[in-house]
Amino acid sequence: MRESSLLERIYAGNPLLPAIVSIPPGDDMAAIRLVQTDPKGSELLLAVDQVVEGIHVTRRTVDEDPAIVGRKAVARNISDVAAMAGRPLATLASVVLPKRYGDAQARELFEGVRGSAQVFGAPLIGGDTAIHRDANAPLTLSVTIVATPAWPGARVITRRGGQPGDGLFVTGLLGGSLDPDGGGRHLTFEPRVECAIALLELLGDRLHAMLDLSDGLGRDAAHLTDANTRAILDASAIPARAGLSWQRALGDGEDYELLFAASGSVPSRLAGVPITRIGTILARDAGSREPQVGVRVDEGSAEALIDASRFGWEHRNAPGGNATRGEQDEASP
Amino acid sequence: MRESSLLERIYAGNPLLPAIVSIPPGDDMAAIRLVQTDPKGSELLLAVDQVVEGIHVTRRTVDEDPAIVGRKAVARNISDVAAMAGRPLATLASVVLPKRYGDAQARELFEGVRGSAQVFGAPLIGGDTAIHRDANAPLTLSVTIVATPAWPGARVITRRGGQPGDGLFVTGLLGGSLDPDGGGRHLTFEPRVECAIALLELLGDRLHAMLDLSDGLGRDAAHLTDANTRAILDASAIPARAGLSWQRALGDGEDYELLFAASGSVPSRLAGVPITRIGTILARDAGSREPQVGVRVDEGSAEALIDASRFGWEHRNAPGGNATRGEQDEASP
Repeated sequence: MRESSLLERIYAGNPLLPAIVSIPPGDDMAAIRLVQTDPKGSELLLAVDQVVEGIHVTRRTVDEDPAIVGRKAVARNISDVAAMAGRPLATLASVVLPKRYGDAQARELFEGVRGSAQVFGAPLIGGDTAIHRDANAPLTLSVTIVATPAWPGARVITRRGGQPGDGLFVTGLLGGSLDPDGGGRHLTFEPRVECAIALLELLGDRLHAMLDLSDGLGRDAAHLTDANTRAILDASAIPARAGLSWQRALGDGEDYELLFAASGSVPSRLAGVPITRIGTILARDAGSREPQVGVRVDEGSAEALIDASRFGWEHRNAPGGNATRGEQDEASP
Repeated sequence: MRESSLLERIYAGNPLLPAIVSIPPGDDMAAIRLVQTDPKGSELLLAVDQVVEGIHVTRRTVDEDPAIVGRKAVARNISDVAAMAGRPLATLASVVLPKRYGDAQARELFEGVRGSAQVFGAPLIGGDTAIHRDANAPLTLSVTIVATPAWPGARVITRRGGQPGDGLFVTGLLGGSLDPDGGGRHLTFEPRVECAIALLELLGDRLHAMLDLSDGLGRDAAHLTDANTRAILDASAIPARAGLSWQRALGDGEDYELLFAASGSVPSRLAGVPITRIGTILARDAGSREPQVGVRVDEGSAEALIDASRFGWEHRNAPGGNATRGEQDEASP
């Protein structure tokens, strides 16, 4: 396997690239041309996210279904585009292949990247490949996504902007994405790009803040609060996937659903995706000891308020220490 | 070490970001705003390149000088910007850290990325970190570079465009970048951004094609030819680093100097960088068996013409086979 010829073959799989691609892949850099219709200038969104064997995918998946690994790396990034209410534009990918990989696996992996990027509207315009020297070194795949606002001059929705009184809403169902019997949703999820753009069209300035759920609702919700705000979630309102507790819906992670703060009414379904109100943003005194995110649980005669940060995980490791996430992810080897 | 807090600390090291950064790092995506002054639209250049432990840097360098590893990853990409005669705009980086890394090493690595990106005029606006689960898994570091044409409406210089009769020129000196006693030039080289822009300013439409030398002149020169052109290099004209043969200058690689094709006269020095004419582009009959790149060697009474593709290496591996490049790179473990 020669690294450069692998990429050439992959790029050859690109159908006609959109007219915005002014220099196609194969040169020192690719180029896109942004025709500006917004007098304030063209805004361009950029992010990078990785998929690593042993962390985000198991070795078994890497070996048996390279294409789905490529898709996951792209889809995680597309989900970030959705979180900004943006529109995908272009993709770049770099990969270090396991030495054990055959030529066919390498092609499948990159074709998984190229094909899914194409489907998501962000054609693959650049890449780099290397092959590990060490026989046991794991696959690493990094994808960079380029996006634009939903339309010329459209707002992009950041994590900051939630106001006291805003409702908190999620799309879809939460929990169980990593379960062995969960159908591999952490690999096959559909990023909510169209739903996010429809939300922006419908709500306009009432759409205040948004993100996509990757670490789990319990942890991610805090990112929509700041020193002056907190969030209260209603445990009974959280749309857990069938058979799962609200605790699992809060903590499992890798949902890649949207969480957003908005004022006023919000439809219960948009672009084919169910939307559920799960809580409220409240004012919080600076210096308060109240948790950033509380979960209200009805215990019959009384209500309990639980700190939501107890649920959800972070990719937390001490060098030489134990992985929390990897073990969860690799429960089904 | 918590992955998210590591990045937050790194971003905090960013001095005031330029006004074009409309959403700073820390959200789902970062954003830059391109204020357009070219009626044809804003052209944006994009590329991705990696540095992998055991391939592009030794484990010893990874452990002892994390900052220089970060710098190399950025500088390789900046060299691609120079190759297009572009101007660096922004950087994104993703890294999978070795499990053996301590907190200080992780910070140094990312600070090497952030600080060098800043110096090269392409502030770090996005990133992703993960930590290998496997104790022996090597560092992988991927950097994405965003650039613009040198000035609004400026041409960008691709690899295609060399014409029969063009001179072939290189900047600087070639060879020995990977030598144990070579001062680590493959780590500390200066990308030729200013020289490339000065060339474009001076030569204008006479600057036909350009690339940066990474795999070695012998191999890279072929990229400036096509089915209708070939290149002849003059062995005695190749600016080999002191004490090195022309064969080494052709084949060693990792020079990160510019190779360009231009018509008319070219100065012998520009932006402080020496420029040497090393050959010519000639017409070539389609289907000809002449080598794409020949090296003319004076053998006293006669001249020999040698196929230059014999010199220079590619990152060529068969899965399960041997590395050619890794061994060369790791000659000084």
